[in-house]
Amino acid sequence: MLTPNQIQDIVKQLFAEEQFIREPKALYEPVGYTLDLGGKRLRPTLLLAACDMFGGDWRQAKYAAIGIEVFHNFTLLHDDLMDKSPLRRGKETVYRRWNENTAILSGDTMFAMAYQYFIQQWHPNMEAILKTFVQTAIGVCDGQQYDMNFETQADVSIDEYMKMIELKTAVLLAGALKIGALYANAPQDDIEKLYNAGISIGLAFQLQDDLLDAYGDVKIFGKQTGTDIKDNKKTYLYLRALQIANAEQKHTLQTLFATTPQSPDKKIQTVLDIYRQTDIHTHVEKEIDRLFEQGQHQINEIGVDNSKKETILQMTNQLLGRNK
Amino acid sequence: MLTPNQIQDIVKQLFAEEQFIREPKALYEPVGYTLDLGGKRLRPTLLLAACDMFGGDWRQAKYAAIGIEVFHNFTLLHDDLMDKSPLRRGKETVYRRWNENTAILSGDTMFAMAYQYFIQQWHPNMEAILKTFVQTAIGVCDGQQYDMNFETQADVSIDEYMKMIELKTAVLLAGALKIGALYANAPQDDIEKLYNAGISIGLAFQLQDDLLDAYGDVKIFGKQTGTDIKDNKKTYLYLRALQIANAEQKHTLQTLFATTPQSPDKKIQTVLDIYRQTDIHTHVEKEIDRLFEQGQHQINEIGVDNSKKETILQMTNQLLGRNK
Repeated sequence: MLTPNQIQDIVKQLFAEEQFIREPKALYEPVGYTLDLGGKRLRPTLLLAACDMFGGDWRQAKYAAIGIEVFHNFTLLHDDLMDKSPLRRGKETVYRRWNENTAILSGDTMFAMAYQYFIQQWHPNMEAILKTFVQTAIGVCDGQQYDMNFETQADVSIDEYMKMIELKTAVLLAGALKIGALYANAPQDDIEKLYNAGISIGLAFQLQDDLLDAYGDVKIFGKQTGTDIKDNKKTYLYLRALQIANAEQKHTLQTLFATTPQSPDKKIQTVLDIYRQTDIHTHVEKEIDRLFEQGQHQINEIGVDNSKKETILQMTNQLLGRNK
Repeated sequence: MLTPNQIQDIVKQLFAEEQFIREPKALYEPVGYTLDLGGKRLRPTLLLAACDMFGGDWRQAKYAAIGIEVFHNFTLLHDDLMDKSPLRRGKETVYRRWNENTAILSGDTMFAMAYQYFIQQWHPNMEAILKTFVQTAIGVCDGQQYDMNFETQADVSIDEYMKMIELKTAVLLAGALKIGALYANAPQDDIEKLYNAGISIGLAFQLQDDLLDAYGDVKIFGKQTGTDIKDNKKTYLYLRALQIANAEQKHTLQTLFATTPQSPDKKIQTVLDIYRQTDIHTHVEKEIDRLFEQGQHQINEIGVDNSKKETILQMTNQLLGRNK
């Protein structure tokens, strides 16, 4: 069985060897730029680990691994344009470095390329593989729309928020695991367990991302801190704080999340103060723990030798900064 | 064999029965709006006609027919945003009726839906079908980029222009025909002939579209006349006029195509005057005739009974306004 390090090396090698820049250069240079920004390559890594866990040969799944990362980066590219985000992984976003039309068209092309990678090497399970991928892609679009809806929707429930991040983040992680398992001809019920584990861990991962956005270090995280607060994003932190806050704090939060001041520093500071007073950090950590353990449990239920689950379990630990 | 009218009725029925609006509404209403604008449904019609010509059952290809039209409408939606076009088929474009982010995300979703339709009903030739579709999609993106490059590129040759419209317009028509033929298990060499015919006829169709943009009636065409001139698009008309024009006319054309006046009426008029003086209309018509005949010839070479080719031939005649 491959270790997490071995799989990460394989993925690194795949992306180093792949040539993303084609003609016309003006279209593919932003594609290459986006894919060169790096990142953790989480989705291809999970995909190959799932394939390996069920005894599959990662070489059969390698183009799907590239394809899912190209798809993920396409969604980031268009999201950055829609959110008008200046930075991604500490570097200028495509729409800022080039322009909006380049961001639109290069993104569209990446989406087409993602499919191209998926079908580059045919597999007997291709119908299930592509159906999983398409459902994932549509889920991500739906999730992004709910996210945009919530910006102007006055009352967002925690359930609605969890459904949104499930679509926007968790289905792609879960989809990557499921696709990897399909390449290995895993049994249907094991595939479902792994998919559900991916959903739980994906939700935990997004809640952690919400935490980092509020408290994280801009140098480590590569994003500015407090952007969710600045952009009035009704994250889990905000929605949970509303539940816990007293009347005055609640009023302050709701008022601030209906404004967009020119310099947001004071607004961010006031919101973070309330988050501290209501001990939101602890509440969110508790929910992350619960989801994480649920995911671990779902992986433990899968019908392969425990020794084969080590790599996936280690990866999910790393993902959420757990020391095992 | 199905007649052109029968195939058009089938396609009309397919789109009338299909439900494009799902949840979240804010995402899918623009999708439904775009697909309800109608249009000739040319690509699904050609796809089903090609399937029928080779003795295939159109019912097997019906989701691909929907998928290719959804894909085409996705490209129109994003093109309208990139070109800042106010109207499409006489109605407001999505980015104007809603906003830019809605146009980006609804377009992305339509691209995902296109794939969803393609894989809805599996077929033994699915590998070739999807490879054709993906190659087509990437070609369309490449073509759109060349089109955008040409806006600022000083010297565009007629060869470069023809390559651009081949990618942007012709490969999708040719791809529709090829995919239809694949559903009918047509022989490889016949598929290539049909594909090449689609390229020739697609090029002729785009040159006719260029003509209509300059001379057409806004009511019939649903677009404003002279938009290519206004937008400094170096179309076949412009590039051919440069070849034929005298030094003074050439200078006027080049000067005008480097300006973007607030009210473009005078510019459009001056350019159209030069097109008339150089008899560009006749030159373009001649090239359209040549390409059209080339396409007809390629269809005639296909190894099925001539009687089976009648529908495709009639459709291409209709497409280019020829009376047979």
